[in-house]
Amino acid sequence: MKVLLIGASGTIGQAVTDALSSDCEVIRVGHRSGDHQVDLSQPDQLRALFADVGPVDAIISTAGQASFGPLAQLSDDAFELGLNNKLMGQVNLVRLGRASVRPGGVIVLTSGILSRHPMPGSSAIAMVNGALESFVKAAALELDDVRLNVVAPAFVKETMVQMGMDPTHGISAADTAKAYLRALEPDLHGAIIDLPLDAAQ
Amino acid sequence: MKVLLIGASGTIGQAVTDALSSDCEVIRVGHRSGDHQVDLSQPDQLRALFADVGPVDAIISTAGQASFGPLAQLSDDAFELGLNNKLMGQVNLVRLGRASVRPGGVIVLTSGILSRHPMPGSSAIAMVNGALESFVKAAALELDDVRLNVVAPAFVKETMVQMGMDPTHGISAADTAKAYLRALEPDLHGAIIDLPLDAAQ
Repeated sequence: MKVLLIGASGTIGQAVTDALSSDCEVIRVGHRSGDHQVDLSQPDQLRALFADVGPVDAIISTAGQASFGPLAQLSDDAFELGLNNKLMGQVNLVRLGRASVRPGGVIVLTSGILSRHPMPGSSAIAMVNGALESFVKAAALELDDVRLNVVAPAFVKETMVQMGMDPTHGISAADTAKAYLRALEPDLHGAIIDLPLDAAQ
Repeated sequence: MKVLLIGASGTIGQAVTDALSSDCEVIRVGHRSGDHQVDLSQPDQLRALFADVGPVDAIISTAGQASFGPLAQLSDDAFELGLNNKLMGQVNLVRLGRASVRPGGVIVLTSGILSRHPMPGSSAIAMVNGALESFVKAAALELDDVRLNVVAPAFVKETMVQMGMDPTHGISAADTAKAYLRALEPDLHGAIIDLPLDAAQ
């Protein structure tokens, strides 16, 4: 299985790489590192990436920047970052990348649980996450040879430690990666996969 | 009660005007008609509107343009329209208008049921509607002197007739307007109000 992984150098992206079976070929894409570098907000860079890489079995995105901060202090630019990068960057992975995915393959995007369980300071990022989840549900109705799912991570323990937060209620990157493996399985299409994975999944 | 109604000339906006009690003062805002004209996607026009109008008890938006069409045919501009107009236009009503709403007042936005119940052709508009609903839930956590709700209309019968669709399963504009009156009531904050209103509401 040939997997194009956007966001490979991030905490979740590294864990997804580790979790993929050893017979997967993983093409690691980062903003500044990896096998290829792209700015997710630049459609021309995405077009060039897909032209370089050729056909794949899966595209997984663990990438996407958005701003966290009090509503009263969020600037126009803070909203634009989330809309151009995490939202339209990932929407454009579907629009521009679907032709590169072999029939029966899958595209997996990343939203976040703040879409449905917000906290103060999350209005811009919750907005973007909610947009991604509704986009995936709607777009999946029109994709019949490629599946499309979205993983909604909770706070990742390793990130919480980096930010000086108490990581007690976080979910490890390794456990978060399991949701991306779940998203690759052939029964899911148009699904929002929440963390932690419950027993039913 | 002084109500600033953005989208007053639309099918739903006219029905909301009719439904508001006769002792309400309604300031009707349209794109090209009404007491004031604004382009929802232009923050400077919103700033000028709020400066002109002064304090109000409620802002209701029944406005916002977004594109409907097959995912494979939606242009970059089609996505931009929804993001700049229906999404950020209404987000900016909150960001720029909250200071004009008297304490205890309310802001009511409009999303649409396609956020959670999409159909083919709705990927761009479902995305925008989902963004609005998650934004409202998150932003409400930070608004303590003004309430914020969002109405998620289903297809409006009158619009379906205009579009040549079978209106059997549509909801009339008059019934849709009831959801906006519900959104004004003091017990709702951060709520998504679906149509049809069920008995519990």
